[in-house]
Amino acid sequence: MTTSSAPAAVPSARLGTGTPRLSLNRWTFRTTPLQEFLEATTARGIDAVGLWRQDVAEVGLDALRRRVDDAGLRVSSLCRGGFLTASAAADRAAALEDNRRAIDETAALGAPTLVLVVGGVDPADKDIIGARARVAEGIAELAPYAAERGVTLSIEPLHPMFAADRAVVSTLDQALDIAEASGSPAAGVVVDTYHVWWDPYLERAIQRAAASDRLFSYQVCDWNLPLAAEPLHSRGYMGDGYIDFPSITSMVTAAGYTGDIEVEIFNEEIWATPAEEAARIIAGRFEELVLPHA
Amino acid sequence: MTTSSAPAAVPSARLGTGTPRLSLNRWTFRTTPLQEFLEATTARGIDAVGLWRQDVAEVGLDALRRRVDDAGLRVSSLCRGGFLTASAAADRAAALEDNRRAIDETAALGAPTLVLVVGGVDPADKDIIGARARVAEGIAELAPYAAERGVTLSIEPLHPMFAADRAVVSTLDQALDIAEASGSPAAGVVVDTYHVWWDPYLERAIQRAAASDRLFSYQVCDWNLPLAAEPLHSRGYMGDGYIDFPSITSMVTAAGYTGDIEVEIFNEEIWATPAEEAARIIAGRFEELVLPHA
Repeated sequence: MTTSSAPAAVPSARLGTGTPRLSLNRWTFRTTPLQEFLEATTARGIDAVGLWRQDVAEVGLDALRRRVDDAGLRVSSLCRGGFLTASAAADRAAALEDNRRAIDETAALGAPTLVLVVGGVDPADKDIIGARARVAEGIAELAPYAAERGVTLSIEPLHPMFAADRAVVSTLDQALDIAEASGSPAAGVVVDTYHVWWDPYLERAIQRAAASDRLFSYQVCDWNLPLAAEPLHSRGYMGDGYIDFPSITSMVTAAGYTGDIEVEIFNEEIWATPAEEAARIIAGRFEELVLPHA
Repeated sequence: MTTSSAPAAVPSARLGTGTPRLSLNRWTFRTTPLQEFLEATTARGIDAVGLWRQDVAEVGLDALRRRVDDAGLRVSSLCRGGFLTASAAADRAAALEDNRRAIDETAALGAPTLVLVVGGVDPADKDIIGARARVAEGIAELAPYAAERGVTLSIEPLHPMFAADRAVVSTLDQALDIAEASGSPAAGVVVDTYHVWWDPYLERAIQRAAASDRLFSYQVCDWNLPLAAEPLHSRGYMGDGYIDFPSITSMVTAAGYTGDIEVEIFNEEIWATPAEEAARIIAGRFEELVLPHA
């Protein structure tokens, strides 16, 4: 099945024969300079990248769009907006304004969707129920703005171990509740295996997302143990951890998802690996564990 | 509200005036010798303790019962059975037999319930869906055995960060699905704030547990950040982390729960604290954050 067995030492500009559906997320290669990352992607015959607002900040919006176009790539998503849980009204207003800029950037990059990490519990009130309500309110306000610009908002349920400090949205069903309550078709969800693989109601929720046309993105990486000191960095190459990729990918496929599949891995060891080598491993694992079920 | 302001240095045998509903879990004091733990509990006027099978192994079942009786204490729960997810049939049969012994011990100690940690994903198949089915099958087999001996089984949903290696039951709703499917009134759930505080459907699930008479135990401790190197040990004194104890305790109370409330904290710092001092802090936090809502 795998076609990525070319030795890493091959000095060709074209190292792979191409992997359909695969998109490389920028953060998987955060230690690689941007241009080198784009070139490693095209060298492997991969069509799309997931970018971050840090990339926009680094080279400027127009220059970033130009570089992506020049490389012949598409942008599958922009990461990230969100952080809507502050209890102080002024902080929420500032967050909304920042999210509008993120939506503008998404549209300018030609990316279909902006990924939202909604924010954690405000230590000032420890009120997770109130924080969730503020998220719902914020997304209902932002979704029409996104729709006018032709992009969608992908609410990302984060693993519940991040509920305190990063995202009070912890399950796909909860994200869908918020998306539907917005009343806008521009609000939907991203399924990231690292965050949702444990969910006993995952298949039902994926079907629900698809039935309401709100399944906007699918991201893959594995769940490695022991947890890294920074738990965000326990993400691993598909196959190195506990996640059953054929099973979850089949759920996403059965729900009718035909879009890009982003590989997003935060992992100190991978960040220390040369980009071409990491891209080769990723393409191989993708072709073995994900693509046959996509 | 608090009555536990007695200085730790008071040399009296009776350091507290008693705290209704409070039970001290043995593992909160795992570094304290058993007899000293029992004495620290009675010295503070606390009526109940949660024990572990390690205590049974250490002093023997009859001797343990005698020590508890001599101290005038009740046993609010025994921890733990479970670990029913092995893919090999022989391993599952051995686990069932071990669970029967745990049920016998629970009955012999006069404890109302045995806490079950159901087990993680079997690395041999990475099949979380299959593992869940094996748990349901095992609990359906064990529940009648428990009922005959007058005890209940409290399925413990563990935080999803333990889904890979400790418990494929991650939410209260999922635990209730399994309890109900057993067909036995002896199968139910324990609500442990550390494991379920993040759940967006928590209130509904607590009501559901109560409506079917399956809410058997309530355990409290806080969610501390940053996560400890061993994430099990990020549990903290109530008030030190992110959990809203008045909110969750009110849900449990509204659902009609009137039983013991166990404080179960795994925390290296607390294990290094003298038992009397830790018990004093726990009673104070309990009286401030939990008891007024219980």
